[in-house]
Amino acid sequence: MRQKLQTLKGFRDFLPKDMDIRNEVIKRLTTIFERYGFLPLQTPALEYQEILLGKYGPEAEKLMYLFEDPGARSVGLKYDLTVPLARVVASYPQLTKPFKRYQIQTVWRADKPQKGRYREITMCDIDTIGSSSPLSDAEILAIVSDSLSALDFEEFETKVNSREVLFWVMETSGVNKEKWLSVIQSLDKLDKKSKEEVQREISEKGLDNDTIKGIFKNLKGAKPNKYLNTVIDLANQMSEKSKLVFDPTLSRGLDYYTGPIFETIVKKPEIGSITGGGRYDNLIKNLGGVDSPAVGTSFGLDRIADVISELGLWENKNTSVTNVLVTIFNKDLADKSIQLATNLRQNGINTELYNSLDTKLDKQLKYADNKGIKYAVILGPEEVEADVYTLKNLYDKTQSKFSIQDLIEKIR
Amino acid sequence: MRQKLQTLKGFRDFLPKDMDIRNEVIKRLTTIFERYGFLPLQTPALEYQEILLGKYGPEAEKLMYLFEDPGARSVGLKYDLTVPLARVVASYPQLTKPFKRYQIQTVWRADKPQKGRYREITMCDIDTIGSSSPLSDAEILAIVSDSLSALDFEEFETKVNSREVLFWVMETSGVNKEKWLSVIQSLDKLDKKSKEEVQREISEKGLDNDTIKGIFKNLKGAKPNKYLNTVIDLANQMSEKSKLVFDPTLSRGLDYYTGPIFETIVKKPEIGSITGGGRYDNLIKNLGGVDSPAVGTSFGLDRIADVISELGLWENKNTSVTNVLVTIFNKDLADKSIQLATNLRQNGINTELYNSLDTKLDKQLKYADNKGIKYAVILGPEEVEADVYTLKNLYDKTQSKFSIQDLIEKIR
Repeated sequence: MRQKLQTLKGFRDFLPKDMDIRNEVIKRLTTIFERYGFLPLQTPALEYQEILLGKYGPEAEKLMYLFEDPGARSVGLKYDLTVPLARVVASYPQLTKPFKRYQIQTVWRADKPQKGRYREITMCDIDTIGSSSPLSDAEILAIVSDSLSALDFEEFETKVNSREVLFWVMETSGVNKEKWLSVIQSLDKLDKKSKEEVQREISEKGLDNDTIKGIFKNLKGAKPNKYLNTVIDLANQMSEKSKLVFDPTLSRGLDYYTGPIFETIVKKPEIGSITGGGRYDNLIKNLGGVDSPAVGTSFGLDRIADVISELGLWENKNTSVTNVLVTIFNKDLADKSIQLATNLRQNGINTELYNSLDTKLDKQLKYADNKGIKYAVILGPEEVEADVYTLKNLYDKTQSKFSIQDLIEKIR
Repeated sequence: MRQKLQTLKGFRDFLPKDMDIRNEVIKRLTTIFERYGFLPLQTPALEYQEILLGKYGPEAEKLMYLFEDPGARSVGLKYDLTVPLARVVASYPQLTKPFKRYQIQTVWRADKPQKGRYREITMCDIDTIGSSSPLSDAEILAIVSDSLSALDFEEFETKVNSREVLFWVMETSGVNKEKWLSVIQSLDKLDKKSKEEVQREISEKGLDNDTIKGIFKNLKGAKPNKYLNTVIDLANQMSEKSKLVFDPTLSRGLDYYTGPIFETIVKKPEIGSITGGGRYDNLIKNLGGVDSPAVGTSFGLDRIADVISELGLWENKNTSVTNVLVTIFNKDLADKSIQLATNLRQNGINTELYNSLDTKLDKQLKYADNKGIKYAVILGPEEVEADVYTLKNLYDKTQSKFSIQDLIEKIR
């Protein structure tokens, strides 16, 4: 019964080596999020289509996994973590506001898979709900900055802008209000496409050349509004590592943003955009909840983990989770090895016991080496006789004999 | 635009209070799994239907979320973690064997929702692939035992049996070989139905009364076979907390088990079956992989977390992730509060800064209280003048003034 064994395109298995990096990224981000008082939340993979549709714009909806469940309900896999958060806030009015939550979960987008772009994506989101204070926007920016430092990225810069600035540009340039969001979606492509291509795209949306010229002229002359200036001031107070740069062409693709928007570019190592977000004051009200201003951002775990792995950023860190392999000399001495393994575990050492009663020692040591385990303990008749343990360091190929206490110290 | 805001039936949101328990369970289980040298693995939510179908039996397939993705591929949400593991093992021949992995992920089953039964379930699986040694079975049993202790469950007992014992009973009782698995599935219901009901069910499968009598007589007289005895001996050596009881009526529902099977009953608190598993030496070969004997077990996170929450088992543990709220006295003193918050965070203290420049102090303290945060710091003109900080303990309603160093010590 030979079968097609691949994963779906854009979906990946994460083997232990991949998981080590992913788990470490999550651990470091979580530490920072909690350091700022954000608490964890999780929501289902599936939502009613009614919740998902009409929130992100038509481009996004084409990429959604929508289907009928076995009970013929119209459902979809979640597309981001923001809309489910908005549903949660709307349906639990008893939540203490401001509600600050982080959420690390998978979302699904049937985008064209390419290097660094997957269909199954893990997002790490932080959002503050129920605060219209610039302190909340600033705090999100400070967390971004602290998080990227915690990941050992050396140099990065956060571009900031505001939807209000963009709306002012649209109004001043005489763009018909119903086309504002559509034009902003085109402007969002300025970092990937040439100015001419973007102008052509806007022109195809029915704007005349003078208006388009006006948009680009007004963008150039745009200044941060008062709210955004306060956010920038506060963010600079909160985190010294913040490098905030006002960029009036920064647009962000999603329709729901209403105020400040931001995007962080990692420059050393040269990674590019790694997190983006902004203020979305109407989404929760529009979902049927009470008026709840909100601001947040999203880190893409996959991209971060890819980069750390590709550049070998954490290469010289010992990421092997298992500290030591306890070998089994032969069947008769197995009980001694079992006792030792139990003892080491009780001392907080991650210990693998070789799972066979009759495998040659060489093969057992090779196994530890293949798995990147640093130490192996040998416990043969001589060792048992002398009440010592032979410890092999598989990294530098040295070995010595230790008493149990010294062995525990050494491995720790 | 008023919307239907519920989650789908059988799907749940996990608010911070729920997440605290779930994360703590996962942390404790992961610690034990890694202590035994098991490493993390994750696989996609979606698989080709070809991978999923024909593995679990017709009853299970009715409960699967199967659909066409936006590219018209036939896909399904994963139903358990064992079949995806088998696919991984079959498609990465380079994995060092024995491959010991743990996997904590969501699976989906469109089962009838009821108390304790959900459609979105988080499984915590451990499996050893590529070892036919009784050491591997014993190790799984030892991990079960250590894990339940780590979760603060006080008394539990693992029933063990072997499919080989059951097959011997079938043969000795003269049951037609093609009916063995079907009769075993009926015997599996002995803990929920009366002996008479089970006998009637077996009788309806076409066995005569003498044969049925023979089955129950032979079950009574059954003894562990040699392999199972070795497993029990080794497990007792590995973990003192193991309470292993041979129970020849233990059957387990799934067809794929081939050797030892086990199920752990938590007796104090009285929870019932919380984990079950066994040896399945043919599944991976049958899936198209190389011959890979395997043994493992599965913990249901949802049930465990429900019980801990319902019984309030961890109630008197301080689970609030946030240590302190820094209040903001007024707009002019906001910078002082921001500095303090940054300072506390740099000292490893989880610190929430109240996110408003003009909220009354009472309201800020009430907010901290609602969120279960123990401490709040007040930093008004007097404090700034005297270079001290007023620390309010919201649990015992006391307050005192501290220098910055003493404040950090106190909160820690």
